[in-house]
Amino acid sequence: MKVFIAGIDGYLGWALAQHLTARGHEVAGNDRFLRRQWVEEVGGTSALPIYSIEERLQAFHERFGKDLLFLDGDLLDYEFLRNAFADFQPDAIVHLGEMPSAPYSMIDQAHSAFTQQNNVIGSLNVLWAMREVCPQAHLVKLGTMGEYGTPNVDIPEGFFEVEFRGRKDKLPFPRQPGSYYHLSKVHDTHNTMFACRIWGLSATDIMQGVVFGTQIEAMGDNPDPRLRSRLDFDQCFGTAVNRFCCQAVIGHPLTLYGSGGQTRGFLPLRDSMQCLTIALENPPQPGEYRVFNQFEDYYSIEELAEKVREAAAGIGLVVEIEHYDNPRTEKEQHYYNPDRQHLIDLGYQPTRDVVGEIGIMLKDLLPHRERILAKRDILIPNIRWDGTHRRSHSLDPQTVRS
Amino acid sequence: MKVFIAGIDGYLGWALAQHLTARGHEVAGNDRFLRRQWVEEVGGTSALPIYSIEERLQAFHERFGKDLLFLDGDLLDYEFLRNAFADFQPDAIVHLGEMPSAPYSMIDQAHSAFTQQNNVIGSLNVLWAMREVCPQAHLVKLGTMGEYGTPNVDIPEGFFEVEFRGRKDKLPFPRQPGSYYHLSKVHDTHNTMFACRIWGLSATDIMQGVVFGTQIEAMGDNPDPRLRSRLDFDQCFGTAVNRFCCQAVIGHPLTLYGSGGQTRGFLPLRDSMQCLTIALENPPQPGEYRVFNQFEDYYSIEELAEKVREAAAGIGLVVEIEHYDNPRTEKEQHYYNPDRQHLIDLGYQPTRDVVGEIGIMLKDLLPHRERILAKRDILIPNIRWDGTHRRSHSLDPQTVRS
Repeated sequence: MKVFIAGIDGYLGWALAQHLTARGHEVAGNDRFLRRQWVEEVGGTSALPIYSIEERLQAFHERFGKDLLFLDGDLLDYEFLRNAFADFQPDAIVHLGEMPSAPYSMIDQAHSAFTQQNNVIGSLNVLWAMREVCPQAHLVKLGTMGEYGTPNVDIPEGFFEVEFRGRKDKLPFPRQPGSYYHLSKVHDTHNTMFACRIWGLSATDIMQGVVFGTQIEAMGDNPDPRLRSRLDFDQCFGTAVNRFCCQAVIGHPLTLYGSGGQTRGFLPLRDSMQCLTIALENPPQPGEYRVFNQFEDYYSIEELAEKVREAAAGIGLVVEIEHYDNPRTEKEQHYYNPDRQHLIDLGYQPTRDVVGEIGIMLKDLLPHRERILAKRDILIPNIRWDGTHRRSHSLDPQTVRS
Repeated sequence: MKVFIAGIDGYLGWALAQHLTARGHEVAGNDRFLRRQWVEEVGGTSALPIYSIEERLQAFHERFGKDLLFLDGDLLDYEFLRNAFADFQPDAIVHLGEMPSAPYSMIDQAHSAFTQQNNVIGSLNVLWAMREVCPQAHLVKLGTMGEYGTPNVDIPEGFFEVEFRGRKDKLPFPRQPGSYYHLSKVHDTHNTMFACRIWGLSATDIMQGVVFGTQIEAMGDNPDPRLRSRLDFDQCFGTAVNRFCCQAVIGHPLTLYGSGGQTRGFLPLRDSMQCLTIALENPPQPGEYRVFNQFEDYYSIEELAEKVREAAAGIGLVVEIEHYDNPRTEKEQHYYNPDRQHLIDLGYQPTRDVVGEIGIMLKDLLPHRERILAKRDILIPNIRWDGTHRRSHSLDPQTVRS
């Protein structure tokens, strides 16, 4: 299968290019290296060193014995995008080319506007380019479980049967996202659903949980450093478990926001690869728009912090957990019961060894302690949802309990 | 009350400035005259002559004995917008400053992208500027009944109580809009709801039906032509009843799309003014986000065409109705039962004389027959939802019945 990956230089994209190639697919992709710029802008860096695209492509060739077709270009450049699809004629497009950070989108007006313009218009361009040059291709679009928010009912996969005042319909499940970034993904979802309806495009809209991890099988047992994906730990681009693991290896307390009762879906990087591949290799019907909720299981942030502590203890690291006042506006205790049956039905086998996965991460990160220590000032969040910028403070234990 | 109208040069904006001033409110507003450009771009013109902003402001001063504070600027220029709010310190903001045409948004990639960028980022800027300089102000944002689409259940006002798998929650009602324009309004809705939740802004989100009409009381009995609002009849900016009335006065058959069974909410221009004023004069609580469905009543397109025929007969005009193949992807027969109780509860008195209102329009338009005749080539749509551009053809009556 010919797969085009938009955002191929990113955390998921670079891993996925290798995973799909190892499975025998032909992969091409584009990137404009904005993720590298954004992380630098917020003062972060990848805990695992990352290499230039030329070095990455060289290592890719050495490992897989073939070239990866890489295009340096932006999804907002419509001519570029249409030509890229027209030339490659993909069977499937995996769209990972968006600004992925909630806190980054909340910094100020300029960052909110940038996020929504970049994500919404980039994704809209993908839809138009498919319509124009490859309407038979299958779009695998990365959304987020965060699109749903935390409703007081179960979260189905995209749609639900509703009875309202005695009549019935199957309707899109209402979205209640928690940041301008998450909103941009909800906008994408509505645009994609519409494009499938009017143009007969086929799409799998992935509502993915929070990904963590440093390794996938395709990279090999002792991966060439050039094949590694990035691993961020700053407040914007470092997601919960990745950030905790970086904190653990330098002896910094794990930074729980508020009580830590916030519950979310999570999955290891290798499960994300497995699930995306299942979606690709089991495409929807022509004209079908389907939604997969994609996560290994759901955990509270506090549970995950405890798992990091447990895995760290296994290699002799003592980890403290500290509660900080929550920079986000979100519920810290809430009902949470999302479905994820579609992937299971297609053969997804959840990892079921989160502590083991975290143990691998900690070992991968230990040699890079100095890189993380050098940036330890970006571990405490100061981007607040209320529009002010100030550091979150460590909370009195009494406050946390109350 | 100090009211800032974004998009004050438009069909609704120019009328509302007069209506609110006549009620004693202090009005300011901005416009960048993009509506004038878009109509020209698609080959249209206003059936009622419209005047330069300088002439409009002069006439405004003559009629109301005071100046209207007008600012020439774009909502996408954030510095301009923030300064405008900071200087005027509005009690309320009525946001009418968006690209309002579904067909225009469907022309091609460039027009889709322009529409979503212009509308979403402009509205996002309004939210940020309120947050920064006037967080106590009340935002009255114009959405559209088209955000809901045509679900097979009743349409509540924004939210509904749901029971799903034995648990209950009050959730946003799912949106299934029918064009990239309508999608941009759905995106606005989600952004606005979020801003109220995290920043405590207050907003009334108006899901308005299709507006028609040429007169409001504030313009006077025999209005100064400079006080008239524009009245478009091209396929993009001419909405159903307005377009039908222009067709009627030149003896062109009324252009029904498909069977004409599509049912929508409609309201006269004077009802739109009445409803917006009710929203302004009965603001929500601080931090409240509320939704008003705003329409006089709902009608099928065919019923409205019959009303235009009836009103035209009253002044001696013979009107034919013709079915054209539908350029849009939409259901032509469907359930439709939206609520509009919130405005009724606050005192809205629906006009209840649609034929009379149409009669006034026809009389207003008759002196301008030549202007419409000169542009008769824009009456048959050629912008199609399937992404192709070709003229819609008149349908065989048998096809319509089947």
